[in-house]
Amino acid sequence: MKNKKRIVIALGGNALGNTLPEQMKAVKITAQAIVDLIQEGCEVVVTHGNGPQVGMINNAMAALSREDSNQPNTPLSVCVAMSQAYIGYDLQNALREELKNRNMLDIPVVTMVTQVRVDENDAAFLNPTKPIGQFMTEEQAKIAEEKYDYVMKEDSGRGYRRVVSSPKPAEIIEIEAIRALVDTGQLVISCGGGGIPVTLKGNHLTGASAVIDKDFVSALLAKELDADFLIILTAVEKVAINFGKPDQKWLAQMNVEEANQYIEEGHFAPGSMLPKVEAAIEFADSKAGRVSLITLLEKAKEGILGETGTRICK
Amino acid sequence: MKNKKRIVIALGGNALGNTLPEQMKAVKITAQAIVDLIQEGCEVVVTHGNGPQVGMINNAMAALSREDSNQPNTPLSVCVAMSQAYIGYDLQNALREELKNRNMLDIPVVTMVTQVRVDENDAAFLNPTKPIGQFMTEEQAKIAEEKYDYVMKEDSGRGYRRVVSSPKPAEIIEIEAIRALVDTGQLVISCGGGGIPVTLKGNHLTGASAVIDKDFVSALLAKELDADFLIILTAVEKVAINFGKPDQKWLAQMNVEEANQYIEEGHFAPGSMLPKVEAAIEFADSKAGRVSLITLLEKAKEGILGETGTRICK
Repeated sequence: MKNKKRIVIALGGNALGNTLPEQMKAVKITAQAIVDLIQEGCEVVVTHGNGPQVGMINNAMAALSREDSNQPNTPLSVCVAMSQAYIGYDLQNALREELKNRNMLDIPVVTMVTQVRVDENDAAFLNPTKPIGQFMTEEQAKIAEEKYDYVMKEDSGRGYRRVVSSPKPAEIIEIEAIRALVDTGQLVISCGGGGIPVTLKGNHLTGASAVIDKDFVSALLAKELDADFLIILTAVEKVAINFGKPDQKWLAQMNVEEANQYIEEGHFAPGSMLPKVEAAIEFADSKAGRVSLITLLEKAKEGILGETGTRICK
Repeated sequence: MKNKKRIVIALGGNALGNTLPEQMKAVKITAQAIVDLIQEGCEVVVTHGNGPQVGMINNAMAALSREDSNQPNTPLSVCVAMSQAYIGYDLQNALREELKNRNMLDIPVVTMVTQVRVDENDAAFLNPTKPIGQFMTEEQAKIAEEKYDYVMKEDSGRGYRRVVSSPKPAEIIEIEAIRALVDTGQLVISCGGGGIPVTLKGNHLTGASAVIDKDFVSALLAKELDADFLIILTAVEKVAINFGKPDQKWLAQMNVEEANQYIEEGHFAPGSMLPKVEAAIEFADSKAGRVSLITLLEKAKEGILGETGTRICK
């Protein structure tokens, strides 16, 4: 590659495992793929999801509250903060070790606690849809509604679960710190779990009962850092239209116009490929030359080299 | 003050409260004292303890393991990581708000997940003394010893508690990132809870079942950042010799030689004032001109101006 390309790469929370031993295995594979990119001459910024992890932490804090009446319920925003360190600590260690193993010692790796502002008038707050945490009985769900002001929904006959809103990210509060570190050549892990969701009231940031989509935050971060690439990792090597049908077609690339057309035609599943394509469009459409890439973790390097994955350009 | 003084300030974990509502109150008062120093023209770097917080998180993760057999026990190092975000999130918010309230908008505030290397041959590992987490019955203690390899000790007739080692900090792993941020004028919260304790094996950092004294880490950080002041906050305005006796004497200052003499004479309580004075000596002794200050949070600014507190100089 000619120049040093700046890449924001968004890791899936599910790909990081459901328990700590699973996470410690997963971060090793992840670290190899990321250091491959660095070795290819790229400047990498890492973001990640936290679905299973924030659910687990939320459950742990709830279990403590049941055992110890002095411990009040812990807000979701605080659980997101904790998940950033829970994941970041393992991830930064695995990255550091992989860099050392390849004698690339001069790149410090850091995790930053990151808040992301959402608009309190975001329509998503009127319609919470994202399920988090454990299943409850109808009775437990009623108590949770009354005691904690949770919104509970019956989930496919498996019991009740708390649902929260998923508003769009408006501003990365710690963006200047992230930029300062990236500009001095550090490998930064930030915006974990989509960032700690906060709303602004006067000068005060208040934690919101919400989960921000990590792919949308990653698109925002990539724009703010003037990145060349946004890599959104998923469980398939390429995006397909007519997915699962006889005329299924894997796409090597699409421009923003085509991508929007495919969305209109209903090719991408909501809650799955759709938000990924939407986030990819958002970054690619923001400036000519910016490329979004959707592919597998293991194919990230080949994708950057133009050999696989689905590229979305303006 | 003539020049921009660089200050490392070490906050007590107990001063941050035992619950989230207590913490949210405490960080406001803390933020005012810290922003006072910044307004006085100082460049401030913040560290903090995590005694009650890491105990609470440790209890929560243990409660989850009891309820959900798929969730293995969470190592202490991971709990320390989570406590850094649990505290840092609130603290960075309170600092940001206080800066905004005073129209000092241009100073970004960030929390960094920080690991601190300890020597696996540190003598402290042979003699764990620091109690953490909840009290247990003798039977529960036996299970914890067998199941998790914990060291349990009977604690003053109140039951059994886990004890861990408190080794000396040898190296702050993320020091370059901290320096890069401090050098670009950012307000950094790092080394929370003394840092996540890790030992180095080959290229791999392994979490240690230990708690590092936050005052010793703060002395190391202050040296690494070539700070002018190390402020160690405590529950008294000044250090005293013959504390609690008729000839008690508050000290406005002592040099390293005098301080060592007082230690030898047994003036400072182990586990209380002694480690604070030792950490203060370590920083002051490292270079002429470096000043350690032991005082109350509310007196930090006056202390820097030379009006109160106990100064330790070379």
